[in-house]
Amino acid sequence: MADLQAALADARDIVANVIDAQPSFGPAPLDDAMRYALEGGKGLRAFLVLEGAGLHGPEHRLRAGHAAAAIECIHAYSLIHDDLPCMDDDDLRRGRPTVHKKWDEATAVLAGDALQTAAFGLIAGAALRDDVTVRLMESLSIAAGYMVSGQMLDMMAERSETPLSLAEAESLQWQKTGALLHWSAVAGALHTDATTKHLDAYGRAIGRAFQIADDILDVEGDADTVGKAVRKDANAGKATFVSLLGLDGAKRRANELVQEACDALSPYGDDAETLKEAARFVIARTH
Amino acid sequence: MADLQAALADARDIVANVIDAQPSFGPAPLDDAMRYALEGGKGLRAFLVLEGAGLHGPEHRLRAGHAAAAIECIHAYSLIHDDLPCMDDDDLRRGRPTVHKKWDEATAVLAGDALQTAAFGLIAGAALRDDVTVRLMESLSIAAGYMVSGQMLDMMAERSETPLSLAEAESLQWQKTGALLHWSAVAGALHTDATTKHLDAYGRAIGRAFQIADDILDVEGDADTVGKAVRKDANAGKATFVSLLGLDGAKRRANELVQEACDALSPYGDDAETLKEAARFVIARTH
Repeated sequence: MADLQAALADARDIVANVIDAQPSFGPAPLDDAMRYALEGGKGLRAFLVLEGAGLHGPEHRLRAGHAAAAIECIHAYSLIHDDLPCMDDDDLRRGRPTVHKKWDEATAVLAGDALQTAAFGLIAGAALRDDVTVRLMESLSIAAGYMVSGQMLDMMAERSETPLSLAEAESLQWQKTGALLHWSAVAGALHTDATTKHLDAYGRAIGRAFQIADDILDVEGDADTVGKAVRKDANAGKATFVSLLGLDGAKRRANELVQEACDALSPYGDDAETLKEAARFVIARTH
Repeated sequence: MADLQAALADARDIVANVIDAQPSFGPAPLDDAMRYALEGGKGLRAFLVLEGAGLHGPEHRLRAGHAAAAIECIHAYSLIHDDLPCMDDDDLRRGRPTVHKKWDEATAVLAGDALQTAAFGLIAGAALRDDVTVRLMESLSIAAGYMVSGQMLDMMAERSETPLSLAEAESLQWQKTGALLHWSAVAGALHTDATTKHLDAYGRAIGRAFQIADDILDVEGDADTVGKAVRKDANAGKATFVSLLGLDGAKRRANELVQEACDALSPYGDDAETLKEAARFVIARTH
């Protein structure tokens, strides 16, 4: 998977460059906490944006750096707030202390807030064609809205006595994780006048596969490699894809979705090899 | 002040109509908490947007409803998060329980997050001219970024032994409160191809006056009328404009700024009467 790893590293560099070029986000603790939260991730979402843009020509990839950085800001904001004591109460993220452990809760709330603002600001200030900017902003706001809605559904499910059905769990996870992965997959094409049809199908499939893989990781992973606490869901008696489909069933479903994702990219031929690798990586990853 | 009160009520109705027309923001507690947080405010920011647009023609006012609703969403999000136990820890807002008291902390974090998303989504989906949408989004993201930065500065000031200088307090308050009021004042003109120059000067002056008035209210107000706890700042030994300038000095400065705001609108003649009333209201208000 050399190509994918190089492409992910490249995406992380591009995001880091865009973020480094931003003026300070405010006083030191806020600015530091925001930049800290942006570090240490895989860069998968940024990679999807850049690679999807690059499929339509290198000039589009060059223009997609702001959208790539924006989705990483949204992702980082969601992680900071999810980790808060009143939410998942996690001390560890990406193998390091969570923002509210390293700073404090108030700084964590504000850093998440400001990262969301920064995401929209990055796209608004990207100097793209105005109609491109508007469609990126509109679709991102819809996906970011789903993410919060999914988080709320997740919280309600944890508090409820009735376990979720498979359809409910799929809807919850689509909202919570899938919608923003899907946005990442189509955002590249949104920079162009090309159809988003193929990347849309790809994004839907990997969005679904991702959470199944996460649930498998929660059961099979090890905290040191995963970089966060594991077996939390199983211990909490949460309905996961593993509890709903069984471990083998979950793996089978994830594999089918990866196949679906790869098939969706066939119109792009060999140009889409790295995106196909990414789809396989989504379910093969160890963290 | 009959005109202003009617115009504020009208602005609140327009915002309510825009929000009512939005699809559900998610599962009931999230959707309910978001709509609850949007209720009971003065609608000052929405009024400023609508009135500033109307100065350039009724057709612009008609188009500005989404931006008016957006700024109220940003304002509501900031209040929900400011009221959290890890921030200002307030139980009362607009005379009613704060969101984390009525629901819980996690719902409050998520409702604030989703209101920020909704703000950008409302503008992105407003079907304005694309270049208008982009400049509204870009300027709003800058102002919303300042707001969080100002909130962080405020928190740092509370924890510090050294009281703020007047210049530091002015910068803090400009970021925390002034920048979004200023945005509200210019957003109407941003819907048009007219200059923002006069509304910019007006917005700068009322943005500055507003926080001075808030500090005066904190000293002179009464919790029942203000709708939130008072004398918190003085009790916390915080540097306020009252502690820095004295009560009379603060009132004098606020009056000067109101005069400045009214003068800035002279090119609009009588059309700007309600905005001038609003400037006077900013320092005369009881809540």
